[in-house]
Amino acid sequence: MIHVRTTVDRPSADVVARLNEFSSATIHEAQGRKGALSHRIKPLHPGMSFCGPAFTVKAQPGDNIMVQVGISYAQPGDVVIVDAGELEQSGSFGEVLATACQSKRLAAFVTDSGVRDSAEIIELGFPVFSGSVCIEGTVKETLGPVNYPITVGGQIVNPGDILKGDADGIVLIKPEDAEEVIRSCKAREDNEATIMAQHRAGGKTVIELHGLAEKLKAKGLLVEH
Amino acid sequence: MIHVRTTVDRPSADVVARLNEFSSATIHEAQGRKGALSHRIKPLHPGMSFCGPAFTVKAQPGDNIMVQVGISYAQPGDVVIVDAGELEQSGSFGEVLATACQSKRLAAFVTDSGVRDSAEIIELGFPVFSGSVCIEGTVKETLGPVNYPITVGGQIVNPGDILKGDADGIVLIKPEDAEEVIRSCKAREDNEATIMAQHRAGGKTVIELHGLAEKLKAKGLLVEH
Amino acid sequence: MIHVRTTVDRPSADVVARLNEFSSATIHEAQGRKGALSHRIKPLHPGMSFCGPAFTVKAQPGDNIMVQVGISYAQPGDVVIVDAGELEQSGSFGEVLATACQSKRLAAFVTDSGVRDSAEIIELGFPVFSGSVCIEGTVKETLGPVNYPITVGGQIVNPGDILKGDADGIVLIKPEDAEEVIRSCKAREDNEATIMAQHRAGGKTVIELHGLAEKLKAKGLLVEH
Amino acid sequence: MIHVRTTVDRPSADVVARLNEFSSATIHEAQGRKGALSHRIKPLHPGMSFCGPAFTVKAQPGDNIMVQVGISYAQPGDVVIVDAGELEQSGSFGEVLATACQSKRLAAFVTDSGVRDSAEIIELGFPVFSGSVCIEGTVKETLGPVNYPITVGGQIVNPGDILKGDADGIVLIKPEDAEEVIRSCKAREDNEATIMAQHRAGGKTVIELHGLAEKLKAKGLLVEH
Amino acid sequence: MIHVRTTVDRPSADVVARLNEFSSATIHEAQGRKGALSHRIKPLHPGMSFCGPAFTVKAQPGDNIMVQVGISYAQPGDVVIVDAGELEQSGSFGEVLATACQSKRLAAFVTDSGVRDSAEIIELGFPVFSGSVCIEGTVKETLGPVNYPITVGGQIVNPGDILKGDADGIVLIKPEDAEEVIRSCKAREDNEATIMAQHRAGGKTVIELHGLAEKLKAKGLLVEH
Amino acid sequence: MIHVRTTVDRPSADVVARLNEFSSATIHEAQGRKGALSHRIKPLHPGMSFCGPAFTVKAQPGDNIMVQVGISYAQPGDVVIVDAGELEQSGSFGEVLATACQSKRLAAFVTDSGVRDSAEIIELGFPVFSGSVCIEGTVKETLGPVNYPITVGGQIVNPGDILKGDADGIVLIKPEDAEEVIRSCKAREDNEATIMAQHRAGGKTVIELHGLAEKLKAKGLLVEH
Repeated sequence: MIHVRTTVDRPSADVVARLNEFSSATIHEAQGRKGALSHRIKPLHPGMSFCGPAFTVKAQPGDNIMVQVGISYAQPGDVVIVDAGELEQSGSFGEVLATACQSKRLAAFVTDSGVRDSAEIIELGFPVFSGSVCIEGTVKETLGPVNYPITVGGQIVNPGDILKGDADGIVLIKPEDAEEVIRSCKAREDNEATIMAQHRAGGKTVIELHGLAEKLKAKGLLVEH
Repeated sequence: MIHVRTTVDRPSADVVARLNEFSSATIHEAQGRKGALSHRIKPLHPGMSFCGPAFTVKAQPGDNIMVQVGISYAQPGDVVIVDAGELEQSGSFGEVLATACQSKRLAAFVTDSGVRDSAEIIELGFPVFSGSVCIEGTVKETLGPVNYPITVGGQIVNPGDILKGDADGIVLIKPEDAEEVIRSCKAREDNEATIMAQHRAGGKTVIELHGLAEKLKAKGLLVEH
Repeated sequence: MIHVRTTVDRPSADVVARLNEFSSATIHEAQGRKGALSHRIKPLHPGMSFCGPAFTVKAQPGDNIMVQVGISYAQPGDVVIVDAGELEQSGSFGEVLATACQSKRLAAFVTDSGVRDSAEIIELGFPVFSGSVCIEGTVKETLGPVNYPITVGGQIVNPGDILKGDADGIVLIKPEDAEEVIRSCKAREDNEATIMAQHRAGGKTVIELHGLAEKLKAKGLLVEH
Repeated sequence: MIHVRTTVDRPSADVVARLNEFSSATIHEAQGRKGALSHRIKPLHPGMSFCGPAFTVKAQPGDNIMVQVGISYAQPGDVVIVDAGELEQSGSFGEVLATACQSKRLAAFVTDSGVRDSAEIIELGFPVFSGSVCIEGTVKETLGPVNYPITVGGQIVNPGDILKGDADGIVLIKPEDAEEVIRSCKAREDNEATIMAQHRAGGKTVIELHGLAEKLKAKGLLVEH
Repeated sequence: MIHVRTTVDRPSADVVARLNEFSSATIHEAQGRKGALSHRIKPLHPGMSFCGPAFTVKAQPGDNIMVQVGISYAQPGDVVIVDAGELEQSGSFGEVLATACQSKRLAAFVTDSGVRDSAEIIELGFPVFSGSVCIEGTVKETLGPVNYPITVGGQIVNPGDILKGDADGIVLIKPEDAEEVIRSCKAREDNEATIMAQHRAGGKTVIELHGLAEKLKAKGLLVEH
Repeated sequence: MIHVRTTVDRPSADVVARLNEFSSATIHEAQGRKGALSHRIKPLHPGMSFCGPAFTVKAQPGDNIMVQVGISYAQPGDVVIVDAGELEQSGSFGEVLATACQSKRLAAFVTDSGVRDSAEIIELGFPVFSGSVCIEGTVKETLGPVNYPITVGGQIVNPGDILKGDADGIVLIKPEDAEEVIRSCKAREDNEATIMAQHRAGGKTVIELHGLAEKLKAKGLLVEH
């Protein structure tokens, strides 16, 4: 088996940029409530966000040699995402690798396990999402596959799948769905902007503005008078 | 069964305002160490705090139709609090509903499950306390009771019970205990202010300033000399 | 049995100050990947950090009388660290004790259980690391040992062991290893600074700059071309 | 406040006996999918089961004095159920109290915290359901209410509510719903028996026997051919 | 998109039968320490075991309509395995479906969420592995894919992948690796049988019988004399 | 540093045998409610129990080379107990090592991490207590200390400390306390036997038989009449 596949079928930068205008929650809803990675995986700082194609790494839990290999072969704009077995006591990524990623203009680093040097990485401002922050590092011994399908946060991630992350977490978009998702997100955002303006204007209830009156009546809602 | 009870017996705004001057930890201690909701339920941002009467909603886990109904009937100053089955992967509340709550001048929103649009809600500044932050939303299908007793964070919450939340979490005060709790809080705070001033002045130990010397002697504390 | 041992064999202030220049992750790596307390124990605020000798307290879970005794006998620069049975719903430390600690110029307070008054303590700026933030307090009934070996976060902590804490967590250094650890930390930091400068300069991969090429070849890494 | 209320409005032994013929899962489904206590609360042995009215105790976490009081006042057939704050490291019940309960012909003992002497209790054969098995005992210091509403496993339990427990967990039935629940359970069991017989006979799929064909067609199920 | 793919490329019954002679732990070790599903997923009874090809179902959390569809299309010997979002409070499978599976001679049912009717299923003797046992059931509303790749217990499961389950948990074997894995398992078992016989004969240490002496010497093991 | 200390100061076989007559819960209570290891650590089968001196091993998480070394040097009657970092996904012990331990007539094997081959070990009947059962094994690379103090389940374990384990978990007894603990256990058991006989005889309440009447009166218990 080849360990590192280098030819990833990436979405266009334009698609990524247009998806990046929407929040993870909006995208999740717009694509029919799917693609959310586990809420366990969160940014080091709530201000961190990113969008880009997945560059996938499967690492032996407690071993980061393939993380280093993956970063070496990733391209600007890529999201290096690592399946490392949800090991909270093991930090496969720190300030040095964050500096490397930032210098290469990668979009983000994501792992289901731990990272360290959290304060320094927040200072750098490179987006890092992880299952934990810890002190312990890893060994560098076992080879594994790069750019094969992996599983992170309960989702299958294929190389080239688009990932959007922000304070709420990370959502995955299949590249072939991207244009339709963007359309749905826009419609959804426009609609939400209108509704929020109406809420701020006041005078109408959530039931009225969200069009729930009929549905509630049909379901038989009984209100005390 | 009536689903929505609209007549809640609320404490006076004055009582709420006076309770709001004390921290959740002070109130908890002052009322004899009771009423704390589980520490799992925390504010989206440590700067968020609130005090107000409970407007209770029991929602089917993964379904927010009654959350929307509840917000529609809640009154300014109310704390909409939702028993949604401690479902961490389900966010029944986001930016649109936070805008609606804020426009209605509700005091806060509390749920034992998830919320989303966390960054936008922090930006809005409306107090939201939850068991998790996640991406996933909910369906809107199942009716349930509003302003019946619910259980959130291991406490029974009755409509009109007073809730105080801050960075440490949420504590519940029975309305009939409020005046006595306020008195105890004041006494406690005055006492703590005095003791802290003495600590800052220096020269005396915790044992001395907290009046533990006799108790420790009675219990037989042995100190090496 | 004597409850409180007062004679702790402390490291010199100079050793503590020099160790304090390094991060917990660097120290952990530099001393051969050992000594990290569980990642569950975190600072109230990521900006908090400290270094100092352990002043150990074993408290009955849910009881803080010995915490108060311990703080009374601790010396400036000490880290009062408490084994209280990993009880997340019990806060044995709040604003009053934090004020006492700060007035005594202690270095930090660490517990495997909860603390409260988190906002006030962050405001004070005294470093507090804990397993949780909660509302509930404790009773003050049961005597226990001070400055005997305890276990916190899966590590045995002896009085006088050096503890360094920062945003990533806490690491323990045996006093007899301190000088060698400092040397290793310096070498490690110098090396990392060089490598990060090279990363920022660009043009070389992680594999090249981290000297992994030969190792990967020996292990048989196969890259698609 | 009275601590111990002795007058509990109990359902008839006949209703209890008839409900006891159905499993917790059948009852839960038959009453519209409600009333299940958290799955964390399980029998010490999967063969244990019970049905009876709740005799409620609110205990201070780590203190079992009110457990002892509650057992003293409970009547034959009662289920003593204790809200003790979900404290896994604290066992408020062991062989002696199990012997007392069995001698009084109580129906079961339930707690959201721990129990001990698990092997001896299994040997006795008295039904005990808990959140954990542990070694640690409790103190006997703090008074609390008996036969007031409590919250256990995320459900409000009122004195006299009917509890049914078996290998799957515990479900709560409101006494006023009991007759209707029994009817629904019977209908449901009859229906399930018929369907299971048809499954054993073979030749038809789940889709056919469970009447899903039309629904699936309406939802647009596409099957590869 | 087709929802249900019916053409699964299954391994031969002979391969399955020969793999079934080995334990999950032996297989895991024999194929180079990979393929273990999370230890959270366990049999209802430690005596349950199975081996067979995966028939994969992706279900909406809290919804079992596709579980019923999947069982309808599965073939004798198949292992129906369901990705239902690790929802511990939701039981998508009970006695009726277990009876259906057993009548169809399926090999096993596996889910990352809950099941109910545990006592009845153990009585039936049909192998069921799950993340929890609970009382709550599910709705039957949302379509999803059958026999597409899913993720269960942190592993990607493709239709036709071989699954072996026993008291220790479940391991996944890629069909193309099966023959080599069988050979390695045999070699490993023969070797272990020899070593265990030598242990039972006595007189030699683990270090001696496991051939560790040289390695330990090379690593510099120091033994007190 | 010497890795393996071979001279352990063991309690006499007679002391061990007499302690072994009491349950872990009785011992815990008899020695003043201390010494219980975390309830997370449980026997593979509830029928397993043991008593013996600790033979301590500190292993690198995910590495069992020192477990093998430890078993090689342990003596008949010893309890090999391993601090392996509470790694649930890592099984450092299986059938082969259990056979080795049993052949050497060790008393038990205890780890805070995982074990595998659980069915085979239960069949063998050798007492094994662990934090989990899993499939994954370990590497054999890193040396560590044998018969130095370790921390397991939140307790410091010194070589030669006495450990008693049964269905409720494990308790640690300091050898110097053993005789007094045995006396207290006997007194406690005699007392409990008397009380249980009185319970079985009937006619008296728990309050009466446990001598609580006066205490409850002093605390002001109010009972409804």
